Amino acid sequence: MKVLLVFAHPEPRSLNGALRDVAVKELQAQGHEVRVSDLYADGWKSEIDRADFPSLAADARLMPVAASRNAFGTDTLTDDVKAEIEKLLWADVLILQFPLWWFSMPAILKGWVDRVFAFGFAYGVGEHSDKRWGDRYGEGTLVGKRAMLIVTAGGWEAHYASRGVNGPIDDLLFPINHGILYYPGYDVLPPFVTYSVDRLDEAGFEPVAESLRARMRTLETTPPIPYRRQNGGDYHIPSMQLRPELGEAVAAGFALHVQDETAAG
Amino acid sequence: MKVLLVFAHPEPRSLNGALRDVAVKELQAQGHEVRVSDLYADGWKSEIDRADFPSLAADARLMPVAASRNAFGTDTLTDDVKAEIEKLLWADVLILQFPLWWFSMPAILKGWVDRVFAFGFAYGVGEHSDKRWGDRYGEGTLVGKRAMLIVTAGGWEAHYASRGVNGPIDDLLFPINHGILYYPGYDVLPPFVTYSVDRLDEAGFEPVAESLRARMRTLETTPPIPYRRQNGGDYHIPSMQLRPELGEAVAAGFALHVQDETAAG
Repeated sequence: MKVLLVFAHPEPRSLNGALRDVAVKELQAQGHEVRVSDLYADGWKSEIDRADFPSLAADARLMPVAASRNAFGTDTLTDDVKAEIEKLLWADVLILQFPLWWFSMPAILKGWVDRVFAFGFAYGVGEHSDKRWGDRYGEGTLVGKRAMLIVTAGGWEAHYASRGVNGPIDDLLFPINHGILYYPGYDVLPPFVTYSVDRLDEAGFEPVAESLRARMRTLETTPPIPYRRQNGGDYHIPSMQLRPELGEAVAAGFALHVQDETAAG
Repeated sequence: MKVLLVFAHPEPRSLNGALRDVAVKELQAQGHEVRVSDLYADGWKSEIDRADFPSLAADARLMPVAASRNAFGTDTLTDDVKAEIEKLLWADVLILQFPLWWFSMPAILKGWVDRVFAFGFAYGVGEHSDKRWGDRYGEGTLVGKRAMLIVTAGGWEAHYASRGVNGPIDDLLFPINHGILYYPGYDVLPPFVTYSVDRLDEAGFEPVAESLRARMRTLETTPPIPYRRQNGGDYHIPSMQLRPELGEAVAAGFALHVQDETAAG
């Protein structure tokens, strides 16, 4: 397979850098082709602004959605964004690797999403009408491909458990896994999360590395998170409300959008 | 009161720009002092990198948490970050205003959080031991102050409802409201969210503006989201698991961390 790893840590000599090397080496050992987008090393620009839309008139009002639609449609996105889109189309698997900062991704990676996930490419795809609200959540440009997160967290695993004070890690990552990856069509694998990383010593590193190698060996076979497909019949169209008879095992929250057999587990 | 509004949209002639002007004007009419951090206009730097820590040796490994701790402790943070910290200490109320991009804040605002919320200022505050895990979630440097979000979303309100396909808006904003604002001590007011903004015309604007004015007039009196205090007795220390007898009205998810009387409403 072809794998794109997007890496978002400023220090190559970090735990994240070491885990990236472990992942890349194992993937290559399995015969996969690997490309890495190293956002800090590449000097990635984080902010959507006028410079992203060179065909926009200097005095025109910048409307990001409309500008993105026009630039993607007329092939006038900037070269750095085009290069990332080309890599996403090339890859069978996308891996986003980052340290969890303030319960989400670092700004530079959010900026990669904001800029690369253009209208017509990652959103605004397919028919939008009273009968259908686009190809998203299980359909879209990137359907048939897989994605997963590799995340490091400073906090304790218990604090991210189902009743931990930070909130459950699966819920904290839902806006990314469901909202960013599942949205344009990816099958999303369970994340690989390492906790208490500020206390991780050399002895603690090898078991983490071995777990990561195991995940890299099973990229093709690990079952994805069974998110519900928007257009698979579970939601009313166009209100996109989950049908009332579904999700009975779950009272509320993001878990409603995972098929019941798993949510109950 | 003193109000700091952090604004994160690239276009002053946007709906967000218009709503900002409405909010600032109403706050001033109420006699409040207002300062605005306009991140795009100020050319805010989004990425945490070595340039943030001028006292770090050129060949030293950059460990963001340790570097932040050292720089805050030795007053060697960069001037742009120091200026924002000074504003946060000045303000009684913090407002973050942004368009919802990919179910979270734009990269430039995430970069404001990543860089300004330094160790010793917004996290790593207070005793960390088996008896106490820091002053956070209801305690901390910014305790006694209020915060709220002003958010615009392109999607339909129904798609963000409790059973909508995007996930409930309160859950999508939990990593920000609870993880970024409540964490360093703010009382967090319910967010002001405007939906379907790409379809909002001039006739639709005035009701939104009037609702926003009403929220600005009640900044001091609106009850905050009743998140549970970490050190208020609801969580086991140091595992920070919610006590098993709590949250019975809520099966799972972020709503566990809101006191039951509200979650049941």
